Amino acid sequence: MHGADGWIVFCHHSYDIHQRYLLGKWFSSPTLTLIPQSGKPTVITSRMEAMMVNDEIYDVVPYKKGEELKDSIKTLLNSFSPKAKIALNFVEEEQVFSKFNFDILTSGTLKALTNFNSQLNYISAKDIIFDIRATKTKKEIENHKIAAQLAEELMEDVVEPKIKPRVTEKEIAALIEYEANKRGGVAFEAIVASGSHAAIPHHKAGQKKIEAEQVLLIDYGVAYEGSNSDITHTYWIGKNPPENVLHAYEAVDQAKEAAFMKIRAGVLGEEVEIAVRDKFEEYGYDHEKLYIHSTGHPLGIETHDIGIGIRKSTPDNPSKALLENSVITVEPGLYFADEFGIRLEDDCVVTKEGSIRLSNTPKEMKYL
Amino acid sequence: MHGADGWIVFCHHSYDIHQRYLLGKWFSSPTLTLIPQSGKPTVITSRMEAMMVNDEIYDVVPYKKGEELKDSIKTLLNSFSPKAKIALNFVEEEQVFSKFNFDILTSGTLKALTNFNSQLNYISAKDIIFDIRATKTKKEIENHKIAAQLAEELMEDVVEPKIKPRVTEKEIAALIEYEANKRGGVAFEAIVASGSHAAIPHHKAGQKKIEAEQVLLIDYGVAYEGSNSDITHTYWIGKNPPENVLHAYEAVDQAKEAAFMKIRAGVLGEEVEIAVRDKFEEYGYDHEKLYIHSTGHPLGIETHDIGIGIRKSTPDNPSKALLENSVITVEPGLYFADEFGIRLEDDCVVTKEGSIRLSNTPKEMKYL
Repeated sequence: MHGADGWIVFCHHSYDIHQRYLLGKWFSSPTLTLIPQSGKPTVITSRMEAMMVNDEIYDVVPYKKGEELKDSIKTLLNSFSPKAKIALNFVEEEQVFSKFNFDILTSGTLKALTNFNSQLNYISAKDIIFDIRATKTKKEIENHKIAAQLAEELMEDVVEPKIKPRVTEKEIAALIEYEANKRGGVAFEAIVASGSHAAIPHHKAGQKKIEAEQVLLIDYGVAYEGSNSDITHTYWIGKNPPENVLHAYEAVDQAKEAAFMKIRAGVLGEEVEIAVRDKFEEYGYDHEKLYIHSTGHPLGIETHDIGIGIRKSTPDNPSKALLENSVITVEPGLYFADEFGIRLEDDCVVTKEGSIRLSNTPKEMKYL
Repeated sequence: MHGADGWIVFCHHSYDIHQRYLLGKWFSSPTLTLIPQSGKPTVITSRMEAMMVNDEIYDVVPYKKGEELKDSIKTLLNSFSPKAKIALNFVEEEQVFSKFNFDILTSGTLKALTNFNSQLNYISAKDIIFDIRATKTKKEIENHKIAAQLAEELMEDVVEPKIKPRVTEKEIAALIEYEANKRGGVAFEAIVASGSHAAIPHHKAGQKKIEAEQVLLIDYGVAYEGSNSDITHTYWIGKNPPENVLHAYEAVDQAKEAAFMKIRAGVLGEEVEIAVRDKFEEYGYDHEKLYIHSTGHPLGIETHDIGIGIRKSTPDNPSKALLENSVITVEPGLYFADEFGIRLEDDCVVTKEGSIRLSNTPKEMKYL
């Protein structure tokens, strides 16, 4: 707990993933969770949702109206001795651009909370959050394995057979989410990008029909018990991909392999990033122009999770050493505006010796 | 624009629905949108997502690294004359518990933004947001009609035929979301609650199997072009509902009708709430104990939208008059803990004369 006497997650209309992390689900009404340094945690929530809290783990304090909510929060804060350290999900203003992930509590709520009891010592929860989320427990790693396996199976068994010309991107995205939901949940809105749409890394699936003799890029994931997978395939629709598409696919695959050669706990993320970019250069591609994102992000309850990923250093945000038992994506790509794009993305667990791959996108471009 | 010279929506890792409202989609990278009092709006986003912005509407300023993002924001803020009024999505601390919906900007981001240029006059955007969202344009009302119609069709044509004993709640929820996705999008995670789960208003669908001779409550919606529907059905699985279930169903239906008798632009939300509760009393139910939520909320791009709904007055938050051309839900319910629950929910447009119903849950309990 980094010296904190308690950690408070307060979620109302806004979004704080730690509510889902701690309580296993979202609540619609304003809900506060307190994890004390020791003893039983408390949840304050509306009586309409109180029965959704697991009361073996949490003391549940239901409220009926907003006034009662305020009173319950005051009582809770006043139960700490003056000067107690209470961790809240905010960061100092100077850090905000490098620590967006931890900057969660809204400005009004932070002020209202701290004014309920201004004697307490409110500190940023970012170290607590980092500890909980940047490395994974055995159980979480097991769930990541299952999430990746479920994603690979649904793609091969159910989705690939349905991909053909004249089906819309949106229909394929809806099918992926349906199958993901049946198996656990949807990790994120699937990207289904055909032809030149594949040159837009975060294209959302639209009403465009998939056409023959084009690439099709699909970026999708399954959520299993709070652990996400995140996988990208790039297919050829038809039989005769042109040489430049096959060459780019090979380069991306080899860039991915170059990353996996480097990944190991303790290695700087930047070293892996450079290996990928060097490989693109070897293949004759201008990576500064054609590779417009970073190689990998931490994966967890959020698809873009908190932790250490693979990217270049910046003055603001120096690259850090990869962590043992973290889960990360490896997703090099090449994007040719208005023409096509290729991205291959796999998930892995970082280990002392290297990594355990959780998914395996094909080395040879698959034709559908 | 309530006197503001510009309105800024800044969205990073956190969630601000106004990004989706203005840009039509979510961006993953930190993205800032400025709507000036007059002239062309600007979007600052990463070069990876810049091609997703409609450049006929927005000037697009792409950035490559965080440093460039900061510089672009500074330049933008410095383009205003000193003392210009810039609206941001925050509220004053004293209002936060009654205006959660408007309390969006995180504490660190608000400070960082305002410190980039401390000469400007930063004001709360809540009045601008209320104006945009509490009443609907003709086009939005049209979209709400379609969203409700699509929801009714998918339930009757596709989902109801699949409901039978031994199917899990989760399978039905996944099917609803699949069908919603194919038609436009999912308004919110569907609630599928069988038997005693129906007594939990916000139960999430789980692995429980639907069983014969029990109620089944389904609360779901379709999103169509940024307008949501939100409908609740309560079915009987089997042929012989007990008298107490049928009696509760009738009471809820009649409470809903009592609400529709009252709804009209200019009427206090509270008057409608009281009519519903009086009807429950007439049927012999203790509404204080069995009806544990309010009767209706505004509906829009968010399922719980900004605007005027149907609820009791509180000292903090007095009830207000319903607005012409607002879209609201009407959703009375009765919840018998550990036994069963009934909720019926329809959507309507509030008009000068009364309301236009967008959906029609059945007056008689449907047996599946």
